[in-house]
Amino acid sequence: MPRRPLFRRRILSPILLVALPGAAWAAGEDPSLPILGYLIIILLSARLLGHLAILFRQPAVLGELTAGVILGVGARYGLPGLEGISTDPFVDLLARIGVLVLLFEVGLESTVRDMVKVGLPSVLVATLGVVVPFGLGWGVGVLLLPEHSVYVHVFLGATLCATSVGITARVLTDLGRSQSPEARIILGAAVVDDVLGLVILAIVAGVIQAADAGVALEWTHLFGLVGRTIVFLVGGVVVGSFLSPRVFRVAAHLRGTGILVGLALSFCFLMSVLAGLAGLAPIVGAFVAGLILEPVHYKDLVRKGEGDLEHLLRPIGAFLVPIFFVRMGMDVDVSTFADPGSLVLALVLTAAAILGKQACSLGVWRRGIDRLSIGLGMIPRGEVGLVFASIGLGLTVGDERIIDPSTYSAIVVMVMLTTFVTPPALTWSFRHRKPPDLAEGT
Amino acid sequence: MPRRPLFRRRILSPILLVALPGAAWAAGEDPSLPILGYLIIILLSARLLGHLAILFRQPAVLGELTAGVILGVGARYGLPGLEGISTDPFVDLLARIGVLVLLFEVGLESTVRDMVKVGLPSVLVATLGVVVPFGLGWGVGVLLLPEHSVYVHVFLGATLCATSVGITARVLTDLGRSQSPEARIILGAAVVDDVLGLVILAIVAGVIQAADAGVALEWTHLFGLVGRTIVFLVGGVVVGSFLSPRVFRVAAHLRGTGILVGLALSFCFLMSVLAGLAGLAPIVGAFVAGLILEPVHYKDLVRKGEGDLEHLLRPIGAFLVPIFFVRMGMDVDVSTFADPGSLVLALVLTAAAILGKQACSLGVWRRGIDRLSIGLGMIPRGEVGLVFASIGLGLTVGDERIIDPSTYSAIVVMVMLTTFVTPPALTWSFRHRKPPDLAEGT
Repeated sequence: MPRRPLFRRRILSPILLVALPGAAWAAGEDPSLPILGYLIIILLSARLLGHLAILFRQPAVLGELTAGVILGVGARYGLPGLEGISTDPFVDLLARIGVLVLLFEVGLESTVRDMVKVGLPSVLVATLGVVVPFGLGWGVGVLLLPEHSVYVHVFLGATLCATSVGITARVLTDLGRSQSPEARIILGAAVVDDVLGLVILAIVAGVIQAADAGVALEWTHLFGLVGRTIVFLVGGVVVGSFLSPRVFRVAAHLRGTGILVGLALSFCFLMSVLAGLAGLAPIVGAFVAGLILEPVHYKDLVRKGEGDLEHLLRPIGAFLVPIFFVRMGMDVDVSTFADPGSLVLALVLTAAAILGKQACSLGVWRRGIDRLSIGLGMIPRGEVGLVFASIGLGLTVGDERIIDPSTYSAIVVMVMLTTFVTPPALTWSFRHRKPPDLAEGT
Repeated sequence: MPRRPLFRRRILSPILLVALPGAAWAAGEDPSLPILGYLIIILLSARLLGHLAILFRQPAVLGELTAGVILGVGARYGLPGLEGISTDPFVDLLARIGVLVLLFEVGLESTVRDMVKVGLPSVLVATLGVVVPFGLGWGVGVLLLPEHSVYVHVFLGATLCATSVGITARVLTDLGRSQSPEARIILGAAVVDDVLGLVILAIVAGVIQAADAGVALEWTHLFGLVGRTIVFLVGGVVVGSFLSPRVFRVAAHLRGTGILVGLALSFCFLMSVLAGLAGLAPIVGAFVAGLILEPVHYKDLVRKGEGDLEHLLRPIGAFLVPIFFVRMGMDVDVSTFADPGSLVLALVLTAAAILGKQACSLGVWRRGIDRLSIGLGMIPRGEVGLVFASIGLGLTVGDERIIDPSTYSAIVVMVMLTTFVTPPALTWSFRHRKPPDLAEGT
């Protein structure tokens, strides 16, 4: 490949240069070398801290975030070779592809039919769990960030909406309760939640981008945005569900290996680009692509020995997804907590996040259902909350950043605390309320 | 993720803009959108042309190259949206990671023990198959490119050295002859060939880089280079073989998923960086990493349900490797063949490549062995030849590019022709020489 002058003689991570002096000129020859160094640091620290998180009965994603926070502190205190990780545009791109793969995987876990089938309780639980935290988050913004504009307050509300289904599902499985009615309501609600959260994100981000472009917020504009979002979601699902089985049936006749991975990733990227063109976040498209794609569409390819798509995506995710979370962690500026206001914001936001989701229990009126467990199970914000925060980092209205470093750090702390709190709380709640012989599933 | 001003408002592929007018501002918001467009084009065209190649009983890699050549013609004739693919630094980086994954996979196919065990015939066959084409390639350079420096001639020789084991192995399997003595000699020789080829590449590239840095070619310098190469290869293998089982035994205690992928890729990237620091091509490191790593090292991780490493790498390769080959194909400038000199160079180079490898048959003196089939089986240059050519594109001595666009196109045509020629030639040779009942394995 031709060398690009832009990257020639790029300075290699000083750690390596100290270790092997005199090799600098050789190292400058290939632009990929420093990035490979970054990838090694990211992959190894993510695995190591992920291991520690699991040891402490926490989900691995918390460890990856913590790895990022530690690397970020190292970079801020001048540890050589780390600074580049959070500023390198290539690492940024790999992280962006990683989060698309992640949302694609999340979407694959449910189908459009699942979405239609979740019962009324799930829809009610999800709606309450989106509306109440949204209001509380907005209120926290008004109270604690009065010097910021209404856009910041609204975005803060949006970051509190989405539930991270992964963490709760994992805890329920660990407790042997994944088939309980509570589990079914929670998981159904989490699916609805994902969609509602993405719709809110699309609308809020759209309003902010319009305001940034100098367009005043008018109701017609807002309706336009909502319309565009709904058209994309419904249109994408309808057209995609029509085309996907047909395209994959034809593709099953293609010879060669890796057909399924190549096509599925292309489909995920295509929906992401279309979402971007419709003014939505690309992750919305990746998620919709996952929703649309069902095993039955590509069963002929599986039969040909390509293997199951979720299995095929797992190694790609294992490579790219930690890059996203470690980078997210690195963006946390620990020094912002020297300012007590930021720490207070983090704690109040966490309280709003936890209390807001307790409204979920109001959506269940059937007897014999453990309503407390449902409220607790909806607490974690996890991956999706972080994705929202990362999008906020990139938004501005005029000269005002929607999510400034201090607010960002508070959001990440909120995501981490809600995630920390859920496993012990759910375990306690289930064991507390059920006969001990049923609760010994750990 | 914070937006980088550098990439803000990056212009999206015009194709998409024409399709969805008015969406331009939204598209500019996310720097990954145009790259996702490029990836879709690359992945789909690679799969489609790969399918056609297989239909014509050719390896899929030929189809991917052809896809690149077609896209390159489209870009040169101003087809919108294609030009960016070959100049985008992100696509370039993904291709570079892809070729590392490819060489890692090739390395994983053989172990250090295999290398030591291949019999004397394989070593002789490999050595003859490296020395003779190297000399012939050099000679072609002297004859047809007299206006170029000796460095160009030597590099041309180097591109003719490596045999691409994949294509021959595939043909032998298709013929049901993968267990024949000829197959064992060819595959053993191909392994030795890979290493010899990489050593020659390391030395030739090192000499050229030294000449570019203004250091005159002295014997002491050359010895230094050879020494560095051998130290890296032997040292890497010895230290790596000592450390790898120990590191993976410890790693088997790590909790979480994706441990094996994360560690294996880190190891591959680490060896690539070390190779780069030692002044060698990063792919040498990736190959050595693959040689060192053996299933027995990570058997505890496989037992924990992580799955086999070669299976785990396959989807990652299916995503990234076609990016490399399509980009390689795009760098072929078809218009250079309007100059008959370039076309003659391509044909003479192909002849030298085919004839040179027939020297391999001189390395076999055992009776009953089909020497012609061995010579024919060593013909394809495939992936490794392309990797060499791509490295040559990045080398300069003073103002002279070692591989200029016209020479590059000739090398790619040579790689394609040797690859086209092998399957029918081998099939003919095996069927011609053996009783028909043995040869009906297709």
